[in-house]
Amino acid sequence: MLGKLRRLNQGVSKMALEESERLPSSERRRFLRSGLFTAGGAMVGGALAGIAPRALAATQYPPEIPSWTRTLGSGVVTDPYGVPSPFEKEVIRRNVPWLTADKISSISFTPLQHLKGIITPNGLFFERHHAGRPEIDPQQHRLMIHGLVERPIILSMEDLQRFPSVSQINFIECPANGGMEWRGAQLNSLQFLHGMVSCAEWTGVRLSTLLQEAGIKPEGKWLLAEGADGAAMTRSIPLEKALDDVIVAYAQNGEALRREQGYPIRLVVPGWEGNTHVKWLRRLEVGDKPWMQREETSKYTDLMPDGTAHGFTWVMEAKSVITSPCPEMPLTGNGIHQIEGLAWSGRGKVKAVDVSVDGGQNWQQAQLREPVMSKSLTRFSLEWKWDGTPALLQSRVIDETGYVQPTLTQLIEARGTNSIYHKNSIQTWQVNADGSVVNVQLS
Amino acid sequence: MLGKLRRLNQGVSKMALEESERLPSSERRRFLRSGLFTAGGAMVGGALAGIAPRALAATQYPPEIPSWTRTLGSGVVTDPYGVPSPFEKEVIRRNVPWLTADKISSISFTPLQHLKGIITPNGLFFERHHAGRPEIDPQQHRLMIHGLVERPIILSMEDLQRFPSVSQINFIECPANGGMEWRGAQLNSLQFLHGMVSCAEWTGVRLSTLLQEAGIKPEGKWLLAEGADGAAMTRSIPLEKALDDVIVAYAQNGEALRREQGYPIRLVVPGWEGNTHVKWLRRLEVGDKPWMQREETSKYTDLMPDGTAHGFTWVMEAKSVITSPCPEMPLTGNGIHQIEGLAWSGRGKVKAVDVSVDGGQNWQQAQLREPVMSKSLTRFSLEWKWDGTPALLQSRVIDETGYVQPTLTQLIEARGTNSIYHKNSIQTWQVNADGSVVNVQLS
Repeated sequence: MLGKLRRLNQGVSKMALEESERLPSSERRRFLRSGLFTAGGAMVGGALAGIAPRALAATQYPPEIPSWTRTLGSGVVTDPYGVPSPFEKEVIRRNVPWLTADKISSISFTPLQHLKGIITPNGLFFERHHAGRPEIDPQQHRLMIHGLVERPIILSMEDLQRFPSVSQINFIECPANGGMEWRGAQLNSLQFLHGMVSCAEWTGVRLSTLLQEAGIKPEGKWLLAEGADGAAMTRSIPLEKALDDVIVAYAQNGEALRREQGYPIRLVVPGWEGNTHVKWLRRLEVGDKPWMQREETSKYTDLMPDGTAHGFTWVMEAKSVITSPCPEMPLTGNGIHQIEGLAWSGRGKVKAVDVSVDGGQNWQQAQLREPVMSKSLTRFSLEWKWDGTPALLQSRVIDETGYVQPTLTQLIEARGTNSIYHKNSIQTWQVNADGSVVNVQLS
Repeated sequence: MLGKLRRLNQGVSKMALEESERLPSSERRRFLRSGLFTAGGAMVGGALAGIAPRALAATQYPPEIPSWTRTLGSGVVTDPYGVPSPFEKEVIRRNVPWLTADKISSISFTPLQHLKGIITPNGLFFERHHAGRPEIDPQQHRLMIHGLVERPIILSMEDLQRFPSVSQINFIECPANGGMEWRGAQLNSLQFLHGMVSCAEWTGVRLSTLLQEAGIKPEGKWLLAEGADGAAMTRSIPLEKALDDVIVAYAQNGEALRREQGYPIRLVVPGWEGNTHVKWLRRLEVGDKPWMQREETSKYTDLMPDGTAHGFTWVMEAKSVITSPCPEMPLTGNGIHQIEGLAWSGRGKVKAVDVSVDGGQNWQQAQLREPVMSKSLTRFSLEWKWDGTPALLQSRVIDETGYVQPTLTQLIEARGTNSIYHKNSIQTWQVNADGSVVNVQLS
């Protein structure tokens, strides 16, 4: 046992390293392997409260000082714009080939199973294009504000940056997120089930500032936002919302918007469905009624059981999902685990999240991780001692308006199963005895 | 004039686009160029309060519908891990070739002049390596906690993720940031003068949680943190701080740490000088006194005028800098501008920032941009109408402890000019009549 412990310490003794530096390299190597220099003979052992039992597996520890400590590393600006470690190459956005006819008008999903905290790094922010991702030259791009305004204006991207700016951390979610699941469990993946939501710090100009500059005429009640992509993606937004918390954003997480997110500018319409956050924004028109464009009539409406369609269902109601464990992140052994997840609401702040490990029969209040911000992702966690028997994990969010995330049964009672949008019901993960996790739907 | 306005509108008329879609392509092109279809004939004009006068330059507007609206764009997952637009290729970290002997033990600077909000994207976070950036295999990497503890432990990266985690937004600043400027203005660049500060959302395990697991012996008062890089970078940290707000971080801005930032794990020591945030962390030893390692004796101490050296000057005192305008971001014309900048304090929250446009004779209180968080970057702004005459711009932060950012004269009175570290004095930008901005030092 002591011999093993000495080997354990070989990689970590600074004193020994200094000592060995006085020796020629061949002797140094023998010295480092000798196991005679453990710093204070630290005993490795003790009861670890079940959290890290495998930490003591001596064979897992590198038997000698690893190569990266024995060599010099890469210099600074090896990557002037940095990239992730090659060991993280599986942490990427993914699409579902059969879901859309091609990749041009399609979706990619954020790997929620790998995310920590509440910020989604720009490289992993989910994508939804209606005519592909355009390559826009910001020098050529303009934003026009016209219609029922006193002073129509056309702004260059440079002009836009001369207005007072604000920053806010907001989620964006496609209303189709989870929409394949209305009639039963279809997919066994957190990424593909819920990965059409991401969250960033957005910086830009308040729409109210720009509309004040243009001067809204008294009869102006609605705003049309139009993108410069091949789809000329358009949505009507009531002025009440436009003047509240909407921004024309030119930056996400500190840097210029990514092309997938509307470079050089997009709308950010906090808490509302993703398609209202018009990307590659080129035109804002003030009018007296909604325009009834394609994306708010034939699409992005919710077909009710009686055959009528609800239009303009903008707000993303409160939703939550457990991100660990999940199908991609099974339990690796019984003992103490941290159940973690994300919760959000398009109506404001998350007030509380409950977690059940028995399919909704009993609930415990999870801890909300700071910061808890309005219309932002909020992370929650609950410590759970798993005894190795099957379990049914659920989370249920309550937002500051008192809205409680519904069960699927409740949601179907109200809305039927004709729609694909706004499915925010409680997700159930079934944990099997071997630790694997599968997506199930409870009746 | 009307002809011009029609051309202006050519790029933005949705109705016209729909109309033209019924025509064959050659006719369609002629139609789009005809200028006969302006939507409502919006008048472009009016007084714009001086913010966007150049917005009306009709010749700057694309004369026809731009190519990116007439074609389909790239599909989703064109970049499974996304990258910035090619038009942003100048927004990168940079090093100063003459500052260090090589790039292995060197520094790269964050392009603060391009950043928005408070989050630094991971690809632009400043770098400081003492023996280069190692390539660590997280499966092989271990963290050992030993010394004056009841239960020495060795943790795999997987073990570490089983502990309760926290997220916090904190800046990290190298104490040498701005250190070339003690004896006069040397560099004319915001990036190179102040770019050794960045800010991210860090996620990891509280050090107090891990030390509780190991059990600190009564005589334990200090902690040694050691990196797995070729420098085996080490710093001594008093347990009082270690048990306060320090975390062993495995994620930054939602994803795994970047290699430059310590992948797979680093210390985050909120508010303390960057080198204490030991990267590539492999060992934590509890002891009864500081270890007096190289990086806290021959380096990272402050040489006083009387020849003595102040050691363990950990806290980064409050500092602020105007980021727009700056040498890289000159003023492009007189009229209304937003003076913007960043402020931070290693002792807590920013309480206020004052801005002067006359070299410190008169001060106005700037607006603090939300969120204002402890030991985080905070963005401030002040609207300024520039009359085209030379000006001397300064910012001065006051933190929640009442500490006021000093002038260089005040700082030199207290500390002399022997040190290169902890130079947090007020920065002066001289705005010339042509709008150019230069770094100057006022006596």
